[in-house]
Formats: sequence, structure tokens, C-alpha cells
Amino acid sequence: MKPIARLVVIGVGLIGGSLALALRAAGLVGHVTGVGRSRENLDAALRLGLIDDATDDYGAALRDAEVVLIATPVAQMPGVFARIAPVLAPETIVTDGGSTKQDVIAAARAALGVKFPQFVPAHPIAGTEHTGAAAAFPTLFKGRRVVVAPEAETDAARTARVAAMWEAAGATVATMSAARHDSIFAAVSHLPHLLAFALVEELALRPDAPEYFAFAAGGFRDFTRIASSSPEMWRDIAVANREALLAELGRYRRQLERMEALIAAADAPALGALFATARDARNDWLARQP
Amino acid sequence: MKPIARLVVIGVGLIGGSLALALRAAGLVGHVTGVGRSRENLDAALRLGLIDDATDDYGAALRDAEVVLIATPVAQMPGVFARIAPVLAPETIVTDGGSTKQDVIAAARAALGVKFPQFVPAHPIAGTEHTGAAAAFPTLFKGRRVVVAPEAETDAARTARVAAMWEAAGATVATMSAARHDSIFAAVSHLPHLLAFALVEELALRPDAPEYFAFAAGGFRDFTRIASSSPEMWRDIAVANREALLAELGRYRRQLERMEALIAAADAPALGALFATARDARNDWLARQP
Repeated sequence: MKPIARLVVIGVGLIGGSLALALRAAGLVGHVTGVGRSRENLDAALRLGLIDDATDDYGAALRDAEVVLIATPVAQMPGVFARIAPVLAPETIVTDGGSTKQDVIAAARAALGVKFPQFVPAHPIAGTEHTGAAAAFPTLFKGRRVVVAPEAETDAARTARVAAMWEAAGATVATMSAARHDSIFAAVSHLPHLLAFALVEELALRPDAPEYFAFAAGGFRDFTRIASSSPEMWRDIAVANREALLAELGRYRRQLERMEALIAAADAPALGALFATARDARNDWLARQP
Repeated sequence: MKPIARLVVIGVGLIGGSLALALRAAGLVGHVTGVGRSRENLDAALRLGLIDDATDDYGAALRDAEVVLIATPVAQMPGVFARIAPVLAPETIVTDGGSTKQDVIAAARAALGVKFPQFVPAHPIAGTEHTGAAAAFPTLFKGRRVVVAPEAETDAARTARVAAMWEAAGATVATMSAARHDSIFAAVSHLPHLLAFALVEELALRPDAPEYFAFAAGGFRDFTRIASSSPEMWRDIAVANREALLAELGRYRRQLERMEALIAAADAPALGALFATARDARNDWLARQP
């Protein structure tokens, strides 16, 4: 890939910061400018060498920018699109790292207008439960997948450039529609996060919560790891992707009702078969992981 | 602790095998006899040095046994109690490693009759998703908790000996009633296992399951780790502890309905607050872990 002369990262957290570090490590970026709400976080990003300079002036930031990555929580993206729209030069590529795609695309379309073809919707499938500039590391995307979800109008050359950028960071790129993306991630990511948050909150509100937590062990730790994720980020995702998420929650509630009936009937063979199907499917999946 | 002259492990898997290894490592056990259904597993246990000999003759196994640990899946325990009852010498201590306690105690009481005070109900809170003799390792119980749930008739000296045995294996021992044990573990262990099995099975049965699994990532991996657990063991637990588990499933279903309403209303502040309560409670819990 030809190096990116100037990269602007709006929201220098785990995703944005790690991409900057990965491109730096590969010698594929000239200058990185950070834009963000929190001066403290931008200072950390400067100290850690994620970015070369920081500003809250969108006009200055976007001047001569080759690629702009929006890596804020998805609920902030409409505001970000509104601020970049008037200062976006014709050659600049805008892309994002949002976990939902239909809502981000709708916001981009509304704010960017005729400049909408410059926007390449994308979602890097990587993360940890940690957030902020200090959580960034250069190998976050190594062996991970990035979904690119171009619309009919999206400029093909820009889509190719964004795909090449993620591949340079170590990822494999897949292309799919925004609607399909949102359905798949509602099932394999957004729903599990909700389920983990729901379990821990319900326990935490019990008057005798400390006794429950005292006996929680390794299974609980792993099952609930994602409940240590950013409340702000997941609140935004839950609202942004609520249609697909409600469909998944409904399916899951019916699945739980089915299991409740089997347990109430003490139907050991059916429960054993259900659990074995799950175990086999998970183990097959795990064996295929890089 | 005074060494255990002769330990009999019925069910030489992760729990039973690891206890034998821990006591051997501490020089606190003379001879270990393994009893089990699977000759192949017993051969592996012999090869790995978990046990000194293996038999399926309960009379021979229990002759001169000082401690008998029943570490089979809980559904097999009634049959095991029935077989040991006639050959159980007055000085022998019987204990178990079952994940549920009220059902195991009822089975022991029914089978052992006047010998019931020799039985010390216990539950080591340790495990991995792996099973069988080959999964055993000597430090499994280090820093973990073991619940001892004596009944009114349980012999106090025997309870103390079992507690000392687990402490010698590296664990901390807590005492509580069987009913309280079953309620707590329904919430912090059995329910999470069910939820993980439920999620994976529902996904696996979709016609387009491969596409979903292709985009499952790190959050999914940890959330579903416990869905790689033994279907037989968890089927037995679900049936054995069904009353407490159904109560927890009911509570959880109501919690999901509450979240569905918040999502449908796009109530971002309430969702954010709920997620933050969960994150804070989990992080506090995590900070207190050894």
C-alpha cells in the first residue's frame, strides 16, 4: 500500500489509536492528527506517540487530510459528520469504525449530501473491554476481520483504499450490506453484551449481592468479561441497532422459554442433546479460529 | 494435616484427579485408588500418576479406605451411594465434589441410612471446560473456594477432616446450608452456563449459521467458553437444581423484558445507567479476586 500522507483520527481510543500505531509500525502513515472531546485523552495519545498533534478545530484538522477515521461511539457520529461536512476537501476519504452500520450510513448521508460518496462505512471486528488512548496497541487488528459495507454511491477507489489500509494493519476485509452486517452483529456481539450486562446488573441490585459475588468463579469471570465494556459505547449500539437487537432478544427469550420447559419437565435427554449441540458447534468454531 | 492413608476417588476426572495430584504434591496421601465407569479413563489416570490402582469392585476399593471422594456427575451419585452403602466401614469418611447439594444430600440420606453422618457434602468451586483424567492438574484448587454444607447429623470431626483436606489442596473453605448453596450457585454458575449453551445452540440451528460464526470474535469466545463444558455434567446439574434454576431463569427473563422495553423506547440514559451499574459491580468484584 502507498503510505497515507495525513491521517486524521476523530476519537483516539482503542480502535483509532491502535490503527494509528499499526500504520506507524508498518511505516505506512506520514502524519497523524488526533481530534477528540477529552483534552486529557488527547494528551495521553500524544505522550504515547499515537498521534503527532491534536486539535479541536475540524477545519485545521481536515486541511490536506488524506484519510479521516471516525472512531467515536456511534451516537456521536451524526455530530461529527455535521462538523466535517463543510470542511471536507474533494480528495479526502472518510471512513468509520462504528459497530453498527445502517444508522451511521443514514447519518453520513444526511450530513454529507453530495460528498456522501467520499464516505466508506466500515467496522473493524476487534476490541477489548478497555477503552481510551492508553488501551491502544499496534497488533489489535492482526488476524481480525474488518467489514466494509459500501452503499451504491460509495466511490469504489476509496473503498479499495480503506480496505488496503485495514489489511496493512493486519486484518482481513469482508464486504457485505449494512443491513446484513447489523443482523449478524446483533446476534454474535450486541446480544451477548446485553446478556452479560443484564446478568451482572440484576445480581448487583440484590440486597445480598456480596454473598453471590463471593462465590462467582472462572466461568462467571469469562461470561461477564464483556460487562466490563464501555457503558456509553454499548448504550449507543443498543439504541442504534435496536431493530435487529430486539429481533435477536425475542428469539433468545423464546429459546430460554424452551429451556425452561425442558428443565421444568426434568427432560435430561433433551437438555443433554441441546447442550451437546452447543458444545460441538462452539468447538468447531474455535478450531477454525486463527 | 495428618496424611490420608488411603484415598478412594470415584470418578477420576478433572476434580477427583486434581485433588489426588494436589495431595500427592503436598505429601499428604499414602495410596490412591481410582474407581470409574470408563476403563480407558482409568488407564489414563494410572499412566498420568493420578492413582496407584484402579478397580470396579466397590468392596475391594472401600476396604481400609480413610476418605472416599465421589467426583462423578451428580446424576450418578445416587447409584454410587447405593453401591458404597453396604461396604462402607464405620471409620471411613465419604465426601463429594458435586455442583449441587440438596439433591446429593437427599440421595446420600436415602442410600446410607444410619451411615449418613459419615457423609460430608462439599463442592469445590473450581473447574475448566475440560473433563477427564487428562485434564487434571495439581494446582486446580489453589486460591479457590470449597463450600462444605454439613447437615445437622453430619459428624463434626469428619467435616473438619474434609475441610483440612481441601485446605491442604490450596483452597479456602466456607460453610453454608445446602439450600443457600444451591440458590447462590444457580445464580452465579448454573444460569450463566445455561445462557451460554442457549445462545450457541440457537445460532447453530440457523440455516445460515456459518456466516454468523464467521464474524464471532473475542467477546463471543469468552462469553461462550462455558458452552464448551460437559453436556452430561450440566444436564445433570440443570435437572438436579431445577427449582433454584427455574427461579433464576424467571428473574433473568424479567430482567431481559425490562431491557427490551428500554431498547424499544430508545431510552439511552436508562440503558447507560444499567450498563454502568453492571460494569462497576463487575470491576469491583474483579478487583477483589485473588
